[in-house]
Amino acid sequence: MNVFDNIIVSTRLRLARNISGLPFPHKLGELPARKIIDNVQSALLPVDKFNRYDMNDISKLDGTILQEKHLISPDLLEDCPFGAVLISADENVSVMVNEEDHIREQVILSGLSLDQAYDRVNRIDDILGKNLHFAFDGRFGYLTSCATNLGTGMRASVMMFLPALTIQNMIDSSINEVGRLNMTVRGVYGEGSKAEGYLYQVSNQRSLGLNEVDIIDSVKGAINHLVEAELRARRLLQHNEPELKDQICRAWGVALNAYKLSTEEAMQYLALLRLGCFYNYIEISDINKFQKLITDCQPANMQKSGGCNLSADERDVLRARHIGASLASFCKKLL
Amino acid sequence: MNVFDNIIVSTRLRLARNISGLPFPHKLGELPARKIIDNVQSALLPVDKFNRYDMNDISKLDGTILQEKHLISPDLLEDCPFGAVLISADENVSVMVNEEDHIREQVILSGLSLDQAYDRVNRIDDILGKNLHFAFDGRFGYLTSCATNLGTGMRASVMMFLPALTIQNMIDSSINEVGRLNMTVRGVYGEGSKAEGYLYQVSNQRSLGLNEVDIIDSVKGAINHLVEAELRARRLLQHNEPELKDQICRAWGVALNAYKLSTEEAMQYLALLRLGCFYNYIEISDINKFQKLITDCQPANMQKSGGCNLSADERDVLRARHIGASLASFCKKLL
Repeated sequence: MNVFDNIIVSTRLRLARNISGLPFPHKLGELPARKIIDNVQSALLPVDKFNRYDMNDISKLDGTILQEKHLISPDLLEDCPFGAVLISADENVSVMVNEEDHIREQVILSGLSLDQAYDRVNRIDDILGKNLHFAFDGRFGYLTSCATNLGTGMRASVMMFLPALTIQNMIDSSINEVGRLNMTVRGVYGEGSKAEGYLYQVSNQRSLGLNEVDIIDSVKGAINHLVEAELRARRLLQHNEPELKDQICRAWGVALNAYKLSTEEAMQYLALLRLGCFYNYIEISDINKFQKLITDCQPANMQKSGGCNLSADERDVLRARHIGASLASFCKKLL
Repeated sequence: MNVFDNIIVSTRLRLARNISGLPFPHKLGELPARKIIDNVQSALLPVDKFNRYDMNDISKLDGTILQEKHLISPDLLEDCPFGAVLISADENVSVMVNEEDHIREQVILSGLSLDQAYDRVNRIDDILGKNLHFAFDGRFGYLTSCATNLGTGMRASVMMFLPALTIQNMIDSSINEVGRLNMTVRGVYGEGSKAEGYLYQVSNQRSLGLNEVDIIDSVKGAINHLVEAELRARRLLQHNEPELKDQICRAWGVALNAYKLSTEEAMQYLALLRLGCFYNYIEISDINKFQKLITDCQPANMQKSGGCNLSADERDVLRARHIGASLASFCKKLL
């Protein structure tokens, strides 16, 4: 795994669009709402096989699974009775309908893939734009429910793995620095200042007055800045190398052998192993499978894979077994 | 491993003897002191090959190694310039000379072996008694430097592994109960109430007015009492079995994988694995090698095996490597 792949987990590109002449979703009745879903679904037919999930129809468990996979927002699941999502077979593309905006086109790719994600979301956008009449203003650009999305309606987000900055309490100053570059940084999992699994989402704060290329360039700049800072922090961590090695070796020992593991612990140990991979203490032969483990470990995904009606304790036992077997199959301790 | 072998680690039988007509060691000059050592050494010649270590001659490191193996007392090493010890090749017999008494004959055997240890120490005692004139009084029995050893001069000690009583804070009341049976219980390693590695020495408090068989029987009684109590406590621990399994699985994971381990941690993890063996979570195919690991892990033994001049950190790294490799070779996780 190269340095960039270790630090940059995934890229997400989202475009917000609305249908001209219709009220925004929170004021929209059931019938016109359903019609938009149907129209989006029809428009996507030639592109790929998309699976449709209507929020009034989906179980709480299945909805939470989609949310844990970052394919839908918590809002769509909780607050949008006429909401729906269309998800491509490879789960790289999801189109949310009737969330805050009528349409939110989203592409998620692994690693740093802003240009590829932009290409792909653009193709989706072209096809939807041909079939649906988007609300567009010559001066403001695409019209959106919330002013922060006006203009391109684009949000470019990169999920970054920043353990060394976090462990050494340097993350806040780094976040402030990229804040000056008009970026927002927040933990992907968990609440508060310490992100679970040391995973942070870095994304542009506004889209108005900027074109798509400007936004992508500004996100790239912020990411480069954070990568440099994280690399410096990782070199600092190495100053006490026996301690660092020990922490990662123990994470390996517990992750492989624990009888039960909570989600938080699983996130913590997997994060330390990813960090260990950077230092060549740990070998991860399949980073996609490793990344998938993090999603697998989330409560709803775990519940689903174990059959429903597991107690939290039973889920923890299942999680430990799944992590132990998975790590043994594609990871190795090199120390 | 049967239940008794899991709970009872080793048996030690010691006889205190003094030479008639000579002052006790703390009042004894160098020449007569050396003469006793030589005489004891000569008397032991026909019995077995014994190695002699004089305390004024031995390095601090080598002395501490003998002490960590329980072959000499801390007092012999620290406070007895004319002290010496004679140790059999199998290290089951050690005869300390010029410690508190002129002669202390000691036999250590693994498991519960009071009768065998008594036989063996008796044979040593017969031979020494033939060659040296022991101070003996028709009324008091063998005369010793300290009144608690008067009579038989015998102390019978059994090293017990009592994790469940300790973890559940039931150890103090158990100690009080056997105290009423005239037994002393103290931690083998570490200071204070919580014994490191959950290892306790149970031994008779006095020897005056009792014959050897009485003493051995009273120790056996106390041990049976403690074994029963420990077994009850182990059944209680099983009431939260997932937690118990998890603790032991993690101990296995860390013991096998840590990059460095302090003595205290090593003791703790090895203890949990021994407990895991009781529940059939862990398989220990060679209990003697397992027991030897505990001695190997002590600071002086570790220092010696790594060549001298190791820093404490380097010792911890070496300890972790030794434990990991050893456990992998004769232990297995069954969960």
